[in-house]
Amino acid sequence: MSDPVDFDRLKVVLVNARNPLNIGAAARAMSNFGFLRMRVVNPYDAGFREARSAVGASSVLADAEQCATVADAVADCELVVGTTAVGDRELHHRVKALPDGAKLLQKRLATGGNVALLFGSERVGLSNEEMSHCHWLLRIPTRVEHRSMNLGQAVAICVYEMARVMGQPIRVNEKRAHPAAQQKPANAADIERLSRTLLEALHACGYLTAKSGKLPENKIRRLLRRHGLTVRDADLWQSMLGQILWSLRAKDASGKS
Amino acid sequence: MSDPVDFDRLKVVLVNARNPLNIGAAARAMSNFGFLRMRVVNPYDAGFREARSAVGASSVLADAEQCATVADAVADCELVVGTTAVGDRELHHRVKALPDGAKLLQKRLATGGNVALLFGSERVGLSNEEMSHCHWLLRIPTRVEHRSMNLGQAVAICVYEMARVMGQPIRVNEKRAHPAAQQKPANAADIERLSRTLLEALHACGYLTAKSGKLPENKIRRLLRRHGLTVRDADLWQSMLGQILWSLRAKDASGKS
Repeated sequence: MSDPVDFDRLKVVLVNARNPLNIGAAARAMSNFGFLRMRVVNPYDAGFREARSAVGASSVLADAEQCATVADAVADCELVVGTTAVGDRELHHRVKALPDGAKLLQKRLATGGNVALLFGSERVGLSNEEMSHCHWLLRIPTRVEHRSMNLGQAVAICVYEMARVMGQPIRVNEKRAHPAAQQKPANAADIERLSRTLLEALHACGYLTAKSGKLPENKIRRLLRRHGLTVRDADLWQSMLGQILWSLRAKDASGKS
Repeated sequence: MSDPVDFDRLKVVLVNARNPLNIGAAARAMSNFGFLRMRVVNPYDAGFREARSAVGASSVLADAEQCATVADAVADCELVVGTTAVGDRELHHRVKALPDGAKLLQKRLATGGNVALLFGSERVGLSNEEMSHCHWLLRIPTRVEHRSMNLGQAVAICVYEMARVMGQPIRVNEKRAHPAAQQKPANAADIERLSRTLLEALHACGYLTAKSGKLPENKIRRLLRRHGLTVRDADLWQSMLGQILWSLRAKDASGKS
């Protein structure tokens, strides 16, 4: 059985949830299975206040952290996974199904990092921009004729499955369990910082322009997430790109003077 | 893989359900996982009519059989199992927890009989009289501090687990979203070309100088090799770094002119 502290490292993130009943139901299921850390991004305000103040609202809801953006909500997480019904939309991510996906989440929790599991809004799920913060996507294997799940039920099944796989003896490679400092995976904040530096450099050199829009930016975010960067790797990239950006701007300034 | 007809032999029986939202949610989850046979015993009438006529109510709800008593609802079933949160009440039944309990249900379905899975009312669960129709009880392993589950979520977890042990009716492709060609790993030549472009950019911006020597260059080559780049990833980096390099040199040239 995993240490309860492992359970606290799973952050269940509800993005743009609209219905207070769903938020309340998600919190209840999390409490049922021992996952107590909820984060909400841009909830429908009245709905969130209503859910929070509902009679019998769990401490999960009372303790839920409200975040302005997905980037904020996942900043301290080493692994970010989004849930999807895998509809017609073309996906740019690997998709893993429960229960295998839950085992991968559990492995990462066992190494000591924080993990974020994102759920999108009731109506449209996660947007491409929201998904661009994810390393991969998790799908609950519903039947093709009826894929779209109720939000509260989707959360319930995921936390049930996580509790189930975490209750099993955890076989973790010793090396992974105690990563040397250098092998520590970069967290989402490190990668977001790196993305921003790279994007600024790409704007400075004309690769991206004001007209480029969000699509190439999301593509680049996904690229950096695919690399499985360690803290050391991210630091090296940050120093290289920082110098490139500085130089591009310095040359701009001198060119204009 | 079970025959779909096996799925139809599982009868999900809601006893004294009160809240139309819960009845609707239960039907939706059943449909998500391919279990289409719902029976309702003594539902709160107005609530049931409301749930049945709700916009988007599934065919599960439309086809639900209404039964006067638990005895009627389970009459054609060889195995009758009740769900319980196993509270303080003294139980006279054997209790099996998910997922082991789901495996027993699946075994009986595979022999050709009907199986009933009973869920009690939201407030008090199944009464002793209702439990007396059951061969044994099924418990979803929630934590002791918070046992009582939302009805719709309890049904969702049970049907998810049943679908899982029966062999998922849906074949989920754990595929990469993109055709294999784009997932082809970059070869050594691709990565060497990329390394050279990056190193030239680093020289152009002053991060590396003639005095830097081979050590940092090797470090950067190893960095790129660690990323597990696909051909597509390498192409994206190549185009970004190519533009950065071009811009650094163009600005140099204009600065000198």
